[in-house]
Amino acid sequence: MSRFEIQNPYLLFLGDAPDQLAAKTANGVKVWRPDWCLGQFRFPACKADLGLPDMTIEEAAAAGVKTVILGVANRGGFIPDAWIVELVKALNLGMDIASGLHTRITTIPALKEAAEKNGRKLFDVRHPTRDYPVASGVPRTGKRLLTVGTDVSVGKMFTTLAIEKEMRDRGMNADFRATGQTGIFIAGSGLSVDAVIADFISGSIEWLAPENSEDHWDLIEGQGSLYNVSYSGVTLGLIHGAQSDALVMCHEIGRPHMRGLPDYEVPAIPTAMDTILHMAKMVNSDVKFVGVSLNTSNVTAEEAEAFKKKTAKETGLPVVDPLKDGVAPIVDNIVASY
Amino acid sequence: MSRFEIQNPYLLFLGDAPDQLAAKTANGVKVWRPDWCLGQFRFPACKADLGLPDMTIEEAAAAGVKTVILGVANRGGFIPDAWIVELVKALNLGMDIASGLHTRITTIPALKEAAEKNGRKLFDVRHPTRDYPVASGVPRTGKRLLTVGTDVSVGKMFTTLAIEKEMRDRGMNADFRATGQTGIFIAGSGLSVDAVIADFISGSIEWLAPENSEDHWDLIEGQGSLYNVSYSGVTLGLIHGAQSDALVMCHEIGRPHMRGLPDYEVPAIPTAMDTILHMAKMVNSDVKFVGVSLNTSNVTAEEAEAFKKKTAKETGLPVVDPLKDGVAPIVDNIVASY
Repeated sequence: MSRFEIQNPYLLFLGDAPDQLAAKTANGVKVWRPDWCLGQFRFPACKADLGLPDMTIEEAAAAGVKTVILGVANRGGFIPDAWIVELVKALNLGMDIASGLHTRITTIPALKEAAEKNGRKLFDVRHPTRDYPVASGVPRTGKRLLTVGTDVSVGKMFTTLAIEKEMRDRGMNADFRATGQTGIFIAGSGLSVDAVIADFISGSIEWLAPENSEDHWDLIEGQGSLYNVSYSGVTLGLIHGAQSDALVMCHEIGRPHMRGLPDYEVPAIPTAMDTILHMAKMVNSDVKFVGVSLNTSNVTAEEAEAFKKKTAKETGLPVVDPLKDGVAPIVDNIVASY
Repeated sequence: MSRFEIQNPYLLFLGDAPDQLAAKTANGVKVWRPDWCLGQFRFPACKADLGLPDMTIEEAAAAGVKTVILGVANRGGFIPDAWIVELVKALNLGMDIASGLHTRITTIPALKEAAEKNGRKLFDVRHPTRDYPVASGVPRTGKRLLTVGTDVSVGKMFTTLAIEKEMRDRGMNADFRATGQTGIFIAGSGLSVDAVIADFISGSIEWLAPENSEDHWDLIEGQGSLYNVSYSGVTLGLIHGAQSDALVMCHEIGRPHMRGLPDYEVPAIPTAMDTILHMAKMVNSDVKFVGVSLNTSNVTAEEAEAFKKKTAKETGLPVVDPLKDGVAPIVDNIVASY
């Protein structure tokens, strides 16, 4: 396996995060990989708290942490000197560092030097660490599921991880394939597909989810939406690289317009499904939708129930709120269909 | 205007091109911008000939050349020392250098130094020279035409340039907008959209074809195809960034399968048009096709004529081979429709 591997367990480095939202990525890692997260590192000014034991770098090393995760938004796109002092300490104590920041830690001389001196690794998970091939479009063995959405940020990562958990709980052979920074920390590997050079989007996904045994499911984290015109190229490359056997439609109820695009309406679920299926069939004529996953956090329980019923009727598919209902009905449908 | 501008006239640097095909890019420049091409530079081993006066670097400088164009494929991805000697000479004599090679000339120390010393510019047109914004999707003034294809390499650049020429000959206010290396040399500006970071594909096209006067046409060079699954992400980003008012469908008759994808059939023109229009309408509900441009080089004149008639009947649009018929019927249709 040539994909990079981030070693766990982790120390979640929160630095001086100004609020809980700034630690969103770290929180995702803690929620999905609690066993990997031994502690959190916080400066006195830090306003985020993941409920993990606070640890100094020395304590983390003693506890057996293998990688310090920078899963926090930093202000102004630079890394404060105080952080660097602690991160150098971590490298000197034998830990790797994986960063989800836009700023590349691999370009910071002090970190580069300390990593080289200690034979440790620096991961900039938002940035490609290798070249990807041009997609071949050749069918490959094994099964693949891709989450797709009516828009960005509708719960695709959450849904994909919930399906992985449900499949693994049933003893199925399944792997979450991460395409964004939070997902990469959760999987310990993956690639930030939105940072890949345009010509290699689908090729990078062929590389991420290569041929596998026939009973194996790659569960590929979707990104963007064909309808979000800021990022639609990423999404089509993902769809064509994934060659999915199964698709899961993700949607947030009650969103007033496409995120970041006030003049663009969110498409109806059946409309979006038609478009996505049309594009996905270009690479696998047998692909089909196996479920719908709804983010219901902005509506009342009654509204959510009514929307679910309507969507189930329109699509003929299992419809769930993965946070409240789990995804068992979707996995039931997969088990029955493949 | 913040787009980079390559100054003309040009010297076309052919180096030691092993055959005519290796000088394909330079040839495109010569065909479309004959007035800009004062001469060609060839080493004794060069097997390509564009029919231009052979010039030394000194002769080019004396003739008033502003930019040396490296529009030739180099072997093994490196630039021979003998080339560098000549290129340094060019910089010392006050010329800029623009390269379409994969290898970045901006990373070659001798060239960097000589450029800095002389206040000259180095352009790596295959590589982004700036950051692009995320697409806003906001409608902008002025009119835009985009060429699209059933596959890659079907004549989109040629068709777009032919439309520019026809429009300008009629006194219309029109600019070719280049999205690939040959096009950039021909336009003197533009961007290689396939080299842009995935998240910024459509944003880069919004930047390339910004708001303009209402009578102005941006004629945007298409890339790839929604049906060529290796590069489809680039194409969708282009379609969504262009917000086209008009689309021209390009197709090569008789291609046995999608280029580079032996298992993929070339779609029928009406099928491809439906798909493209569906995606293009997401950003401009008024967009429509205004013509079909056929590459007929692989079929007999009779086959070409029969195919043209069939396509005209299927689409209700002007259908031309731009090389043989010109594109006047397409421009007539544009003039009548907008």
